[in-house]
Amino acid sequence: MHRKLAAEALGTALLVATVIGSGIMAQALSAGNEAIALLGNTIATAAILYVLINIFGPVSGAHFNPAITAVFFSRREIGAAPAFAYAAAQIAGGVAGAVLAHAMFGLDLIQTGVKVRAGAGQLIGEATATFALALTILGALRHHPQSIAAAVALVITAGYWFTSSTSFANPAVTIARALTDSFAGIRPADAIPFIVAQLSGASLAALTARFLFPDPALDRA
Amino acid sequence: MHRKLAAEALGTALLVATVIGSGIMAQALSAGNEAIALLGNTIATAAILYVLINIFGPVSGAHFNPAITAVFFSRREIGAAPAFAYAAAQIAGGVAGAVLAHAMFGLDLIQTGVKVRAGAGQLIGEATATFALALTILGALRHHPQSIAAAVALVITAGYWFTSSTSFANPAVTIARALTDSFAGIRPADAIPFIVAQLSGASLAALTARFLFPDPALDRA
Amino acid sequence: MHRKLAAEALGTALLVATVIGSGIMAQALSAGNEAIALLGNTIATAAILYVLINIFGPVSGAHFNPAITAVFFSRREIGAAPAFAYAAAQIAGGVAGAVLAHAMFGLDLIQTGVKVRAGAGQLIGEATATFALALTILGALRHHPQSIAAAVALVITAGYWFTSSTSFANPAVTIARALTDSFAGIRPADAIPFIVAQLSGASLAALTARFLFPDPALDRA
Amino acid sequence: MHRKLAAEALGTALLVATVIGSGIMAQALSAGNEAIALLGNTIATAAILYVLINIFGPVSGAHFNPAITAVFFSRREIGAAPAFAYAAAQIAGGVAGAVLAHAMFGLDLIQTGVKVRAGAGQLIGEATATFALALTILGALRHHPQSIAAAVALVITAGYWFTSSTSFANPAVTIARALTDSFAGIRPADAIPFIVAQLSGASLAALTARFLFPDPALDRA
Repeated sequence: MHRKLAAEALGTALLVATVIGSGIMAQALSAGNEAIALLGNTIATAAILYVLINIFGPVSGAHFNPAITAVFFSRREIGAAPAFAYAAAQIAGGVAGAVLAHAMFGLDLIQTGVKVRAGAGQLIGEATATFALALTILGALRHHPQSIAAAVALVITAGYWFTSSTSFANPAVTIARALTDSFAGIRPADAIPFIVAQLSGASLAALTARFLFPDPALDRA
Repeated sequence: MHRKLAAEALGTALLVATVIGSGIMAQALSAGNEAIALLGNTIATAAILYVLINIFGPVSGAHFNPAITAVFFSRREIGAAPAFAYAAAQIAGGVAGAVLAHAMFGLDLIQTGVKVRAGAGQLIGEATATFALALTILGALRHHPQSIAAAVALVITAGYWFTSSTSFANPAVTIARALTDSFAGIRPADAIPFIVAQLSGASLAALTARFLFPDPALDRA
Repeated sequence: MHRKLAAEALGTALLVATVIGSGIMAQALSAGNEAIALLGNTIATAAILYVLINIFGPVSGAHFNPAITAVFFSRREIGAAPAFAYAAAQIAGGVAGAVLAHAMFGLDLIQTGVKVRAGAGQLIGEATATFALALTILGALRHHPQSIAAAVALVITAGYWFTSSTSFANPAVTIARALTDSFAGIRPADAIPFIVAQLSGASLAALTARFLFPDPALDRA
Repeated sequence: MHRKLAAEALGTALLVATVIGSGIMAQALSAGNEAIALLGNTIATAAILYVLINIFGPVSGAHFNPAITAVFFSRREIGAAPAFAYAAAQIAGGVAGAVLAHAMFGLDLIQTGVKVRAGAGQLIGEATATFALALTILGALRHHPQSIAAAVALVITAGYWFTSSTSFANPAVTIARALTDSFAGIRPADAIPFIVAQLSGASLAALTARFLFPDPALDRA
């Protein structure tokens, strides 16, 4: 279990360092064109997701995301105690990743997000993004487990662009992004409704997957 | 069959939500540079296609496209009744995807496309795009079924750039895009000739595939 | 053989239509920023290469390129008569692809390239690009045949950016690009030295591969 | 061994030619928008890494990087003499790649880097980048050897954007980049601390991998 928790913490740290670090780099270089900044942010995030899922998947399952851990808990594929430990490791790793990103760019290590991300549209966006992410994970595990790293990287790639919230889709990453006053940041007050929307989307995906991707083993349960 | 139709409807909904949503996002951020907007639109569309074909392929075949369903019908790989049901599910899903995209961005849920897309060049473009898409699907199924998700994502990636029409290549998506007044929209009057061109291209691809990718089982039929 | 020649001609036509068509589209949309135009051109070209090699590889070998056919001839993997037929099909297909691209964008069907591409640096660039392409094909065939479509797409992706000539690396495509007065065009007078440089690079790659990727079957020959 | 050293030298030469050549091209075309230049630089570098690892991996292991060779030496997977020979071949190849890039673009063949890359943040960046690269290689070799080319290409893709130093992560490439006064260059005085940071990051990755990816064969050693 120590190895699994270390993998979850380190993986989430590198994921958050990439999300925030590439946001800082992209904004600094893109001369105010936010589409180009989002492009750099997207490519970096998708690339590191592919890598992290590949190398940490066989160690811990490579959740890096309390909403995904909750989905596996609801499917009885992880127990309550390890699920809580996973979530704690993910959140701690995410905070460490934000600190690392700030250290690399010579900024204050802990900051407070100021970017307003609010409104019904963005909450629908977060629910849709997390629905798509969780459905992708459950569908890929059921049908194409060898392509799960690519599938997760690409559903987030799409989410960064097609959802109005740019697809946080992850409570641990959301908390970490509330600690940065940069391109990827979010106002702490907006983080709570984001997380609620994420958990709603993940729940809907778990139900949808039960219908669309029935698994004999689970059906007997 | 309920599961198959649900997969076709949900898949087409997520595809259209991505096409339209990423178009709205890309246009809002790109400060008038349409090439950058098309780049964001392309990456998001290709990414979600890879994901949707991976997770829904084993459920319904992941057509998401009446022109492709028609090709399989012409090859007697799907019957008339299920083919009509597939097309209806795809169209309904596509409309729902447009509504979802508008909801995420806080826009009127149903709109009317105003973007003029007309002229012989664009119709040749649509025929070419759908020819390339259908030929890719038939060739990949014949030779490399495990790479079909990547191949479809990439033929659409190319089509967004090399065809003058930016490669709609899908009657259900065309109908849905007639319901949005955004980057990805199309004037309803232009949708009809687009669909005719798409079906022509798909038919030509079916003939070409019969010659280039002969299949012993079909040859006996 | 008819099927093989049709695959070579159709594949080269779609490749050239993509190179030229995406160049026209990219230049029209990119508001004078040539790096963004080259990005669109790169992504479209790489994407269609992956697709075409996947679907036509098992039919004809998916050369689409007289320099590559010449390499296989030098390795006695194709005879003289079929090699000439391949090259003729590739050149004819390439010209048809240029015509198709112009038709899609409502331009004169046959044009004359005016873009000057000359100087020792660009010839070193073409030799390097074709060396890298041929070495990639021979190395992938020797070690990772299942990844050849991705490898070829990506060596051209790199070549578009790291060579001063933007990596034509293909005599049939060079001839076709001499027939367009657009982003991807080349002055006919510059096409001849480009082709000589391409064949030099391909020859060097064949020699290098004989040393680096020895093949027991060939060594006995 | 001659074949291995030739593969290391040629691979590193093509890698450096791509890094520097695409930097020159990207900067020339991007009209001062450094984010677009970095995007072209990233795509070209990632693409050629995938290709080179695919074709040279089975020949020499495709290190192209003294820090990675040092990691394998620390794991007793390569001896001291071959490790030194590898590093020498990599450095010689890297210098040749810089010369080739300059030749292609008609520039002075040997230059001196002038770009200042200094400060604690960038050194943390280099250590992080090399840590991530080495951990990716060790994790992929342990769990997904068939995906190592994609994993390395993508961890460098992420590194170009999320690290403040843009992820040199390679002493041989760092030395070569000190010989170019272009987008990818570095002041020679800054190269030394970069290399120290890289070796630190690689060492930390070797320790982390021993804990996270235990290998029965090594544990017995």
